[in-house]
Amino acid sequence: MKVQKGDTVILIDLKKDLRRIVRALPGEIKIKGVGVFDPSVLIGKEYGEKIKIGQKEYLIEPPSLVEFIRGIRRKTQLILPKDSALMAVYGNLKPGDVVLEAGVGNGALTIVLANFVRPNGRVIGYDVREEMLKYARKHLELYGLKDYVELKLGDVTEGIEEKELDGIYLDLPEPWRVVPHAKESLKPFSYFVAYVPTVEQARKTYLALEGEGFFNLEIFEAIFRNMIVRPLGTRPNHDIIGHTAYIVVGRRGR
Amino acid sequence: MKVQKGDTVILIDLKKDLRRIVRALPGEIKIKGVGVFDPSVLIGKEYGEKIKIGQKEYLIEPPSLVEFIRGIRRKTQLILPKDSALMAVYGNLKPGDVVLEAGVGNGALTIVLANFVRPNGRVIGYDVREEMLKYARKHLELYGLKDYVELKLGDVTEGIEEKELDGIYLDLPEPWRVVPHAKESLKPFSYFVAYVPTVEQARKTYLALEGEGFFNLEIFEAIFRNMIVRPLGTRPNHDIIGHTAYIVVGRRGR
Amino acid sequence: MKVQKGDTVILIDLKKDLRRIVRALPGEIKIKGVGVFDPSVLIGKEYGEKIKIGQKEYLIEPPSLVEFIRGIRRKTQLILPKDSALMAVYGNLKPGDVVLEAGVGNGALTIVLANFVRPNGRVIGYDVREEMLKYARKHLELYGLKDYVELKLGDVTEGIEEKELDGIYLDLPEPWRVVPHAKESLKPFSYFVAYVPTVEQARKTYLALEGEGFFNLEIFEAIFRNMIVRPLGTRPNHDIIGHTAYIVVGRRGR
Amino acid sequence: MKVQKGDTVILIDLKKDLRRIVRALPGEIKIKGVGVFDPSVLIGKEYGEKIKIGQKEYLIEPPSLVEFIRGIRRKTQLILPKDSALMAVYGNLKPGDVVLEAGVGNGALTIVLANFVRPNGRVIGYDVREEMLKYARKHLELYGLKDYVELKLGDVTEGIEEKELDGIYLDLPEPWRVVPHAKESLKPFSYFVAYVPTVEQARKTYLALEGEGFFNLEIFEAIFRNMIVRPLGTRPNHDIIGHTAYIVVGRRGR
Repeated sequence: MKVQKGDTVILIDLKKDLRRIVRALPGEIKIKGVGVFDPSVLIGKEYGEKIKIGQKEYLIEPPSLVEFIRGIRRKTQLILPKDSALMAVYGNLKPGDVVLEAGVGNGALTIVLANFVRPNGRVIGYDVREEMLKYARKHLELYGLKDYVELKLGDVTEGIEEKELDGIYLDLPEPWRVVPHAKESLKPFSYFVAYVPTVEQARKTYLALEGEGFFNLEIFEAIFRNMIVRPLGTRPNHDIIGHTAYIVVGRRGR
Repeated sequence: MKVQKGDTVILIDLKKDLRRIVRALPGEIKIKGVGVFDPSVLIGKEYGEKIKIGQKEYLIEPPSLVEFIRGIRRKTQLILPKDSALMAVYGNLKPGDVVLEAGVGNGALTIVLANFVRPNGRVIGYDVREEMLKYARKHLELYGLKDYVELKLGDVTEGIEEKELDGIYLDLPEPWRVVPHAKESLKPFSYFVAYVPTVEQARKTYLALEGEGFFNLEIFEAIFRNMIVRPLGTRPNHDIIGHTAYIVVGRRGR
Repeated sequence: MKVQKGDTVILIDLKKDLRRIVRALPGEIKIKGVGVFDPSVLIGKEYGEKIKIGQKEYLIEPPSLVEFIRGIRRKTQLILPKDSALMAVYGNLKPGDVVLEAGVGNGALTIVLANFVRPNGRVIGYDVREEMLKYARKHLELYGLKDYVELKLGDVTEGIEEKELDGIYLDLPEPWRVVPHAKESLKPFSYFVAYVPTVEQARKTYLALEGEGFFNLEIFEAIFRNMIVRPLGTRPNHDIIGHTAYIVVGRRGR
Repeated sequence: MKVQKGDTVILIDLKKDLRRIVRALPGEIKIKGVGVFDPSVLIGKEYGEKIKIGQKEYLIEPPSLVEFIRGIRRKTQLILPKDSALMAVYGNLKPGDVVLEAGVGNGALTIVLANFVRPNGRVIGYDVREEMLKYARKHLELYGLKDYVELKLGDVTEGIEEKELDGIYLDLPEPWRVVPHAKESLKPFSYFVAYVPTVEQARKTYLALEGEGFFNLEIFEAIFRNMIVRPLGTRPNHDIIGHTAYIVVGRRGR
């Protein structure tokens, strides 16, 4: 399996556990600490090979959900796979669904949602920041998911024009302000899922959902910890992320 | 939205946070502590309504991934949504994939996998226990997913006849014995994902994957904790599951 | 080492991991599921031996901090050793200290504090419930710590008459109401430590401490998890306590 | 409360949450990123005041267990207060105890143990590295605990000359090799406590204790997480330590 012209490739600096997403096309990109690099040199290389760029060695891999998201250089907070996985499953996502996401940011959650609504579903992704939409669009193109996503500039706290949605996924500061609109726009028994950093946001969202008759209400967090395998033994990772966000879930009533 | 004849319905005992999966068809089922109940009485009820059965009140809901899995009465260890969500995303699952699962057990992971490979993918689910295949089949039928799954009696530690798989998902005692077969049966750059309770199993599987040239090796666990909302305040749940399993992930090389 | 008349003994039901605190004196005590038992039969037995009472077998042990606290039958919430250990160390406790505790409850934290202020320090323990003081006193006597503790009926949210305290330890619903009094009663650079179940209580206490010029402010929780050793492998415990409380710490300024 | 000549003082760089332990005596010390500083300028300052050194502002505090240990610049792995607190309480430590510690390292655990065995107890602290003993001695002197500790060069895996010990606390690679000696040197019903990074070490130690008839066997870890208070809300800390060590505990039989 060789790198083709136009492929999106993940370069993994194995020593530092750092990823870099590049497109195998002629051009010049700067890699910090390495210098300028022309990604077209990747064309024709075997995936799984190593390549030396400057003094660093990189593994050449095709994208996968987790490796691609790890490769995104965040311009704003990034929703990690450990959270987007739970949001998708607790949100009852399935292929064919038409779902709304607001606060697309870097597009990391969008990628997971779009991956799973394929081939006949769609993600409608809102953000109030034009530049974040542009940045998310770039990632969706690189991952090959742009046909499943419609990106829109807009503030869903002021209303949602879409109706009959199969799910709503939010990463914005005041998700409770979206709850009344969500009630109108979600199909009965569809899920509302919000990602919020603080306890106060989680509580306020929970109470707003309760007030609008949502049920199966739940707030949770997932503490994700790697185990490290060394010749002398096995132990949990020292460097873990202590907190990303609370996830608030509610199901629309009839 | 009314319950139709033949619908699969989740009855939720809100007081005890217990679920019961029933089919809205004439017949008799026994509910522990309630007595005999004819589920056809559900036909014509509104989803979201409450119904009294014996002395208990139940909420009538359509299935969702999480609520259905919570309703499964486990005959063997059950893979919770918090783990199957991570397995699917770290396994790089997508609609259209053809994946192998072994150790289907109650079918809880199978449901999540089948949900996401729809409409044109397939799960090939193995188990060495005929009765577990039967039990899993029942759940897949109830959830409406049986067309996306092929259940087979067999022991994948002895070999895998399928080739060109997009992923392998294992819940069995010695996943390291499957690694050499997985290497032959997975497409290049596809993922091997194993679910194991103990550190020793995780390490052994990790080392077997390393030995066969798999990369992006990772062992992790997710500690899932609910936050409880009470009038006086918000706090983490007292009753949590301290451990389910470690998840071991590796990507096949070229 | 033989059980002497008057010894406090821990009987451990090894099968069920249950503890029972008894005094080796003639009398009759009821043990649930066992019946009536005269603890004087323990006199002369060897510590470390097993004894059969009814159909159950118990290990005879002398008290230790952890085993004794595990043996307390809680009449109210009980502060576990994993929390009292942290409270003592983060509160900078040392032998000779004179500290105030309020909300003594079952006396589990009192035992840890009194254990460490020995031989020349003192715990002044308040509670607003006469019956809890009585219950705590019983445990302190059984553990042999009553000489290091003065128990008082009173509400420290209304004021603290003691001055020049080396530390204040609180387990009560509104610790922020004690902060102004604590400032007057603590020696400079001594610690205020509160144990609170909810995030809102922790925040309110933190802000009250900040408002009164306390520093080294900190809120934390400790998730305690056992590892289980089985012939086939090692794994974290399934049954863990997901949450006990947040601990709020502040140091009085000059 | 003014700084006296000879006082041990903690300087806290509040911006970076960094601590520096200094002795208020004439001399010159280098502070990284600040330059040379004569600590005698602290004499006569008020504790709780701020002092500017170079471009940085420091808070002047007297030592406390937690702040002092945070100020230690580790030459080897350092046992954090969250672990030493649990070791002390699970080890049933009390004033007057004579306990053995091996692998004293920086002396962080020694400080906690010595703090609590005061005024009439003693810690006998072993290390195989002369330079670590010297480093630990410095910290014990600075904290004012040297009179309660006897530091010895030696390898306790080869034997323990002390007898009738009230507790043994180990931070060394192969604690299971100490178990047979511990059995001879501990008083009946005293505790053996080991601090080990990996699961394999914990298991091996556990089994060695079991083999020598120790009981109340337990392996645990504590995940410590701060809550952060911000104007907009409260959330767990992002930067936490995912793992320090497992603590293995066993009680000697008769």
